[in-house]
Amino acid sequence: MKIAVIGVGLIGGSVALAARERAGASVAGYDQDQEAAAQAVARGALSERCPSVAEAVDGAEAAFVAVPVGALPGVVGEVLDAASPDCVVTDVGSTKRAVVSRYGDPRFVGGHPLAGAESAGVEHARADLFEGASWYLTPTPGTSGVLYERLYRLLRSFGARPAAIDADTHDAILATVSHLPHVLANVLVSQAAATLAAGPPAREGEPAAPERLPATGPSFRDATRVAGAPSSIWTDIYISNADALAATLKQTVEALQRVGTALERGDARWLTDWNEDAAADRRRLLEAQLGRGALVELRASVPNRPGVVAQLALELGRAGVNIVDMALYPAPDMSEGVIALWVSDQLEAETAQALIGGLGFPVARA
Amino acid sequence: MKIAVIGVGLIGGSVALAARERAGASVAGYDQDQEAAAQAVARGALSERCPSVAEAVDGAEAAFVAVPVGALPGVVGEVLDAASPDCVVTDVGSTKRAVVSRYGDPRFVGGHPLAGAESAGVEHARADLFEGASWYLTPTPGTSGVLYERLYRLLRSFGARPAAIDADTHDAILATVSHLPHVLANVLVSQAAATLAAGPPAREGEPAAPERLPATGPSFRDATRVAGAPSSIWTDIYISNADALAATLKQTVEALQRVGTALERGDARWLTDWNEDAAADRRRLLEAQLGRGALVELRASVPNRPGVVAQLALELGRAGVNIVDMALYPAPDMSEGVIALWVSDQLEAETAQALIGGLGFPVARA
Repeated sequence: MKIAVIGVGLIGGSVALAARERAGASVAGYDQDQEAAAQAVARGALSERCPSVAEAVDGAEAAFVAVPVGALPGVVGEVLDAASPDCVVTDVGSTKRAVVSRYGDPRFVGGHPLAGAESAGVEHARADLFEGASWYLTPTPGTSGVLYERLYRLLRSFGARPAAIDADTHDAILATVSHLPHVLANVLVSQAAATLAAGPPAREGEPAAPERLPATGPSFRDATRVAGAPSSIWTDIYISNADALAATLKQTVEALQRVGTALERGDARWLTDWNEDAAADRRRLLEAQLGRGALVELRASVPNRPGVVAQLALELGRAGVNIVDMALYPAPDMSEGVIALWVSDQLEAETAQALIGGLGFPVARA
Repeated sequence: MKIAVIGVGLIGGSVALAARERAGASVAGYDQDQEAAAQAVARGALSERCPSVAEAVDGAEAAFVAVPVGALPGVVGEVLDAASPDCVVTDVGSTKRAVVSRYGDPRFVGGHPLAGAESAGVEHARADLFEGASWYLTPTPGTSGVLYERLYRLLRSFGARPAAIDADTHDAILATVSHLPHVLANVLVSQAAATLAAGPPAREGEPAAPERLPATGPSFRDATRVAGAPSSIWTDIYISNADALAATLKQTVEALQRVGTALERGDARWLTDWNEDAAADRRRLLEAQLGRGALVELRASVPNRPGVVAQLALELGRAGVNIVDMALYPAPDMSEGVIALWVSDQLEAETAQALIGGLGFPVARA
């Protein structure tokens, strides 16, 4: 089986590695960045590096387009022009309507793997990137069933979990769970920077200096971690999902205005109910995401010296407790802090609590 | 020197421990929860557990009120009534205007240490909780200079960095860097839960189930980590800072509306500029917070098995590299992922990069 991969960054490179290692395919690739293509060959991701899209696609049974969202529609058209009638063509873009609505071609199936957003470049590519990952597919009534099934089985062989969804629903969901958090993070950092630049307080005996902004807490840091994500990726995403994101923002604005009104009338009862609803919603989302028992959060007070995270993680690892997620909340001088750990069931939580307590660190369920 | 501590939770207990261990003071305490007071004695935080506020304050040279924000004004009044003319009285509440405006007493100085928000209870108290922590003080023109100086020196002996600020500015800053992130996290989880409850997609061959919500990415998880924080603490904070927070929310709404307008007119240039501004603002805030060289972020691809975080942290710890902050971005099945590490200068980053690479994990600067 021959596969074509157009664009060999993190996702394209990982598709190529998975296709070779897990589906036994030969993989022909093209990237307009010749160095990236050469690196993909060197890493064993590509069997063959082609001088054009048409040559990469020639004779392929499946073609993956893994270029930035803004370039997608054009490149998908180019691939469809070059591909045989028996080649399934898909893409891996974060938004789906623009490219799906443009091509009614029975060979085209839009796709979006939920994987790999946290790094970029073929140097991070790996054959198991999609193991267990949801992979949205957006077939239309005109999609060829034979070709859709071929793509589906191929993705299963990568270890992914394909899920069919219409492009409109896909883009609406992603607007809320992915694009909106990025917008809020941006707004939050810029608002904080503007507030603080207005004039931070001086320490006793020291002159006021615009650089000495007051410390922000862990809540601020978490909320703004994705602020200013690479414009080279995100402007395309925002533009391609502009209407869904604008609609989502309207809902956010309305929700914030309701909170503002409750604050203005000093309505403690309303604020408490609203906060409790949010707590319930958060837990529901976390639990649904893990797909098994209730996630348990532990918080331990630890000295924040080199090695302490290691000691703790190592101790839990030895006992077979896997840390699903972890966050450090250091004190301002970084010399100590609280470590939050999420483990996936009650039994693991009990084991972890006993072990951490045994190390002499105060620990409690959050 | 005798110190009084009213309310012995995490903060009150830590004040008591610091006062005993670092200032050589005897500490008399009162808590309406008798068990908490007994535990504070058992932990060595209190020299003496008193049956009333008045008895705890009797003969004290400084009194700390560490009760929930909603109870603050009343308890501060009680303490001022019982305290001698030579006793400085302070509190540790997260908002300052309500309590500061109520008492023009020269003995009262409002306070707010930026420490310890991530856990609660005297069992997490420690003498070094305030080491390096900013500690806001809100003196007024009527505050006694002698008493202010005494409090200042006491806080310095705890290792804290006291910073004078007026109560209005304090509450405006905290509205943006602390209270607003909590509101946004709440709004975000509830909006996502509502969107997803509308009907998640079914996997191939499986029925649609309301429980099977689509995976949310790390950006969503970070942005919502503080959602639904304890109402017992947060309703008081929201209410006591209602006007400042409402004003801050208005700015947020306006910022979101500007983004919405740019999206509606498809203005890629505006969105790029806005995103770049946010990136610059984020870096500026992070760097200012650390107060030394530029923070360096590394991202490594690692298998997410028990022990791998340990291995990595241990390796860096041995080489003296301290991890300032860390975040795991697991793949959906938690079997692998990207680990983001923040280290505090270029030299540590180089050391860390070499060590992580030597372990066989791809690593790059973010």
